Amino acid sequence: MKLEKYKPENLRRSQKGINVHPIQRGGILTPEAKRILSEWADGYSACDLCFEGRIDLIQKPPVADLKDDIAEFLGMDDVRFTAGARHGKFVVMSAFEGTVVLDSLAHYTSYIAAELSGLRVYEVPNSGYPEFRVEAEGYAQVFENVKKETGSYPSLALLTHVDYRYGNLSDAREIGRICRDFGVPFILNTAYTSGIMEVDGKSLNADFIIGSGHKSWAATAPIGILAINFDYSSEVLKTSEQRGNWSGRAFTKKEPALFGCSPVYGLPVITLMASFPGVVERVKRWEDEVKKARWFVREMEKIEGVRALGERPRNHTLVQFESPSFHLIAMNHRRKGYFLYSELKKRGIFGIHPGMTKNFKLNTYGLSWEEVETVAGAFKEIAEKYGVGVED
Amino acid sequence: MKLEKYKPENLRRSQKGINVHPIQRGGILTPEAKRILSEWADGYSACDLCFEGRIDLIQKPPVADLKDDIAEFLGMDDVRFTAGARHGKFVVMSAFEGTVVLDSLAHYTSYIAAELSGLRVYEVPNSGYPEFRVEAEGYAQVFENVKKETGSYPSLALLTHVDYRYGNLSDAREIGRICRDFGVPFILNTAYTSGIMEVDGKSLNADFIIGSGHKSWAATAPIGILAINFDYSSEVLKTSEQRGNWSGRAFTKKEPALFGCSPVYGLPVITLMASFPGVVERVKRWEDEVKKARWFVREMEKIEGVRALGERPRNHTLVQFESPSFHLIAMNHRRKGYFLYSELKKRGIFGIHPGMTKNFKLNTYGLSWEEVETVAGAFKEIAEKYGVGVED
Repeated sequence: MKLEKYKPENLRRSQKGINVHPIQRGGILTPEAKRILSEWADGYSACDLCFEGRIDLIQKPPVADLKDDIAEFLGMDDVRFTAGARHGKFVVMSAFEGTVVLDSLAHYTSYIAAELSGLRVYEVPNSGYPEFRVEAEGYAQVFENVKKETGSYPSLALLTHVDYRYGNLSDAREIGRICRDFGVPFILNTAYTSGIMEVDGKSLNADFIIGSGHKSWAATAPIGILAINFDYSSEVLKTSEQRGNWSGRAFTKKEPALFGCSPVYGLPVITLMASFPGVVERVKRWEDEVKKARWFVREMEKIEGVRALGERPRNHTLVQFESPSFHLIAMNHRRKGYFLYSELKKRGIFGIHPGMTKNFKLNTYGLSWEEVETVAGAFKEIAEKYGVGVED
Repeated sequence: MKLEKYKPENLRRSQKGINVHPIQRGGILTPEAKRILSEWADGYSACDLCFEGRIDLIQKPPVADLKDDIAEFLGMDDVRFTAGARHGKFVVMSAFEGTVVLDSLAHYTSYIAAELSGLRVYEVPNSGYPEFRVEAEGYAQVFENVKKETGSYPSLALLTHVDYRYGNLSDAREIGRICRDFGVPFILNTAYTSGIMEVDGKSLNADFIIGSGHKSWAATAPIGILAINFDYSSEVLKTSEQRGNWSGRAFTKKEPALFGCSPVYGLPVITLMASFPGVVERVKRWEDEVKKARWFVREMEKIEGVRALGERPRNHTLVQFESPSFHLIAMNHRRKGYFLYSELKKRGIFGIHPGMTKNFKLNTYGLSWEEVETVAGAFKEIAEKYGVGVED
């Protein structure tokens, strides 16, 4: 075994500068979370004063309060913390049988949670290139299809509030209304919305809200948020019925789908907590974020051949561009598709998938105006360097 | 919402001094892990350069190498990282049907993983008070019982290498041999052994080894280690067969039981990595740790009525004591059982479950000789303060 490579000096995070990686922007710690980082970093630190054998019931640090406050913040009845949004979706889906309807832009972990839970998946189509919209009526149509093919309406429906591919914001409220009409419990996956923009489960007619602490609530990984309404909590958060056949041991407080007690007992829950006041504030500034993203798209589209995909106007800071002009450069470049990554890196920008030029995604969330200008300027400069036209 | 309580100045970790909490000692970060903490703290930091959509395949930072090196370190064929040991046990158990045999000292998460996987549990008895030993032959007997009652031998067996209640070290090698004889796949839960003492899957006849990064490998929570032999990897680590009915989307690299890609993408895997060279070294010093623990037990038993439970001599640093003399004090004390916690806290020692005096558990792992002396001295001082006899 060569252990040299694991030494701290060899574990520097090589990407320094402005990180526009689509999944990283909302997970950058707040200054408050950074301040408590080293104090709570050891293993299971949050369990020092656990009396009830469940992390969500701990009073000190105030995890139980945080649970209630996040429920209120999301307009939901109750909350659990999970090992990421993916685990939260599994917790819900594992309580159901039959079929689940997903939007066709759903994150792969939604499909995987269904697979792990033995649910059959039906997709709601999207409108395809270039906008890839998921329309609310599509849910009603697919519900009818499911009924026709399986004999009953689906057991569950899931909408990806903002999808990770095009950053489209779908009409959760209307889809929630349709779900209520059909009596189908509705999961809203807010991995790219709650924590950066206002999300209110009541007005969006959600039965379950899934959030991602490390994607959008400025927490260390992994921590997911599962918010749930009381109608479903006894079903989904049912406690253990296991009993040892020799010892008689039982674990009646433990929630099996959360592995008994959710594995977030150290930094994940503590950084989520320390960042929470900042998160409550930052969601109010979402309009400014959209304004910056729209400005950025306009600037990028001044580059010949570069065009944002997804709905217009943009309602989110995650944007996918198609860029045949950059792809043409790549085809003739010694470094092929990596040229774009390298050119950006030279300019202090990273997070574009290395090797991608035909399409690429980035996220401007939380960048200052100056940084957004720097990023747009860098792309333009690179275009011009390789003879691609840029409008004034 | 009152957000004041989440401010960093109100989130100080109140327990300062020597932490003897049974679950905390092996999770204290190494100096190396502390050095890279802030650099990798943001959300999903390890995913900056992910090309294959799976954390365990990332080359930079060297997660893929770490996986191979940990497999070698544990004498196993392959490794995955999981959201804690509890998740690792679920990953294995969810691939099986029927029954699982557990030792009756198993951690509750072993029972819960079985429940979540729909497996029926049979327990191997222990010898009861005061040693609570789990004997290897018990496995063979229970296997026969299972055969008698269900018509076939169990699908799986699990041994808790060292249990969290008494810190007993069971005879994994012999139990593994019995499992091989019966053709029953053998899970060795090393949450309290691998990472602090040498564990070699080959010589212990393990088919699966479960480890806990935050309990015993000096990592931030949550990260579990699932080490597996090739005989079972295609079954347990099978990849997704899901396919979108409209889009045709498929996720053929993703492993469903790991939620597609295991949610450990930031600090958990990076701190595990940074601590790994130190862990490889520290397991060689295990004998010294046992020596300290045995010395500590001898000193504690000089206090009237205090006696270590579990096997003798002690083979682990986690010890449960019975202490009727302290309990008698508690019954007459204004603060009841909390007196012991407070008296220890005054002396800079914490981690004893607040309120417990009849029995209490602690862990001396990684304490210096001086610290172990301080802890023993504090207990003696408290005993004398309340008129309990202490031998010279």
